[in-house]
Amino acid sequence: MHTIKQLQTLISKEIDKEISRLTQLQPRNLYEPIAYTLDRGGKRLRPVMVLLACNVFTNEIEKAYPAALAIEVFHNFTLLHDDIMDQADVRRNSPTVHKKYNPNIAILSGDAMAIMAYNYLQKSCTSDLSAMFQLFSQTALEVCEGQQLDMDFETRDDVSIEEYLQMIRLKTAVLLACSLKMGALAADAGGKIADLMYEFGINLGIAFQLQDDLLDVFANQVKFGKKIGNDIVANKKTFLLLKAFELADKATKRELCHWIDKKEFDAEEKITAIQATYNKLNIKEITISNIERYYQSALNIWAEMDCSPDTKAELLQLAQMIMERDH
Amino acid sequence: MHTIKQLQTLISKEIDKEISRLTQLQPRNLYEPIAYTLDRGGKRLRPVMVLLACNVFTNEIEKAYPAALAIEVFHNFTLLHDDIMDQADVRRNSPTVHKKYNPNIAILSGDAMAIMAYNYLQKSCTSDLSAMFQLFSQTALEVCEGQQLDMDFETRDDVSIEEYLQMIRLKTAVLLACSLKMGALAADAGGKIADLMYEFGINLGIAFQLQDDLLDVFANQVKFGKKIGNDIVANKKTFLLLKAFELADKATKRELCHWIDKKEFDAEEKITAIQATYNKLNIKEITISNIERYYQSALNIWAEMDCSPDTKAELLQLAQMIMERDH
Repeated sequence: MHTIKQLQTLISKEIDKEISRLTQLQPRNLYEPIAYTLDRGGKRLRPVMVLLACNVFTNEIEKAYPAALAIEVFHNFTLLHDDIMDQADVRRNSPTVHKKYNPNIAILSGDAMAIMAYNYLQKSCTSDLSAMFQLFSQTALEVCEGQQLDMDFETRDDVSIEEYLQMIRLKTAVLLACSLKMGALAADAGGKIADLMYEFGINLGIAFQLQDDLLDVFANQVKFGKKIGNDIVANKKTFLLLKAFELADKATKRELCHWIDKKEFDAEEKITAIQATYNKLNIKEITISNIERYYQSALNIWAEMDCSPDTKAELLQLAQMIMERDH
Repeated sequence: MHTIKQLQTLISKEIDKEISRLTQLQPRNLYEPIAYTLDRGGKRLRPVMVLLACNVFTNEIEKAYPAALAIEVFHNFTLLHDDIMDQADVRRNSPTVHKKYNPNIAILSGDAMAIMAYNYLQKSCTSDLSAMFQLFSQTALEVCEGQQLDMDFETRDDVSIEEYLQMIRLKTAVLLACSLKMGALAADAGGKIADLMYEFGINLGIAFQLQDDLLDVFANQVKFGKKIGNDIVANKKTFLLLKAFELADKATKRELCHWIDKKEFDAEEKITAIQATYNKLNIKEITISNIERYYQSALNIWAEMDCSPDTKAELLQLAQMIMERDH
């Protein structure tokens, strides 16, 4: 069994090889932005999940390289197009593709990445390629649905917690779940354990996103590595804000609305005020208990998995890594 | 053997069923623009080509429905995203998706269409689904390359005829070729005849695009159904303009450049002037002889095809239909 660190090194090498290949292709304006996007890649969480899940069943983890590349390229495609939609100028400390190049190049190179993801997946040497394609397409469409719901929520003021959880399930959790199941399928392991891995990934994914919401408000800024309070400033309908509206009395709701409707404000002042309301309503504790509920569900599913102790330990470490946000 | 008209009716019914299904799906803001796009669909040339090619080998043309839907949805996805990039407000007499909804919805529903195309293809009941996926992904990536080259050409003044032909091969011809080969693959017919169909499609596709360039300048406006001279007004680097630059003497080149560089002009005056230059250089006759060269290549390939006389007649009718622009 490879360690997570070893898997990170292995997939990073594969991705780097692919980046080199892409920089040779024509037209440059199509393929260079793709290489640029992949090159700023972070900890490669999702492809590592593909390899790890494959490694549960076989030591021939190279069987899962095509699927791992497919997932990573697809994930980066969604980030690229999301950045256009959000008009984000910076990602991972570098200019976004539509800023560095232009919006048309960003749209088109994103489109090419979505297609390339299928091209990688195609290279999988598995007995049931059709099952992998089906899982991949279903997941990819769900991610689009999640992104649309997220955009819809921006202009709605009646979003329920239930709807929010469904949105993050689609936008974030299904791709983590798909990564794990894809690794199992790449190792020709279908059936119950592949389904358990999928459910394990869904619960981890929801816990992961709720924790992301929490850290935006209550993180140790130094450790978190990015400025806190972004969601508050942007009026993002996170779990915390929706929960606060659910629990607030009339006066507190008015106060929340006052800050949300305010067009001109001091960011620090707004963050402090909303944090104070969250504290009054115990939002931190409630969010933590929800995170733990999903994390515990993941662990319960993990306990059911019938695989060797060392692979099981590695899956647990993956879960811990995701929740420590070491990615 | 079904007639082209029958095939049009059959595939239109399938597409209409799919449009009905899409209007039921959530989130509305993702799926409604997709239904809207498909509903303004024209003569369904590409899916008819898929069915016709399948029909060469079998009467069970429903085998090709999934591939036909995949190609039609993919084609409409490229139009949707191209319209954002070109900032086009109108397509087929209706507002484009980014105008009717907004650019973010247009990007995302386009993305979903690309994924859905794979989902349809997946439903093909063929012995070699992998070959279909491979052809589809390769073609889709080539279409993106063609679109990027087309955008690159806008800011270049050294585009050769050879580069132009390569661009239209990628942007237009490969999808027509792919449609035919896909139909053959859906009927489990691979090998030489499928490859001949592909080459037949490539040559028809190039002839088709050259004719499109020609008609923009020299069409009978009533019969053509749209305003002529759009490419001239927009300085589009068509076959005609590139050929004119190739053949022009210094003085004529200066005149062409004068019109191209002019920021303010009367459209009719510019069209008349460029047409006059084209006439002086015999551009119409040269373009027609190039169209005929590609059309003749298509017919030579058609002559090589080893299939029954009635299917052969139908393929010829398809070629004639494409060149008569009855689509």
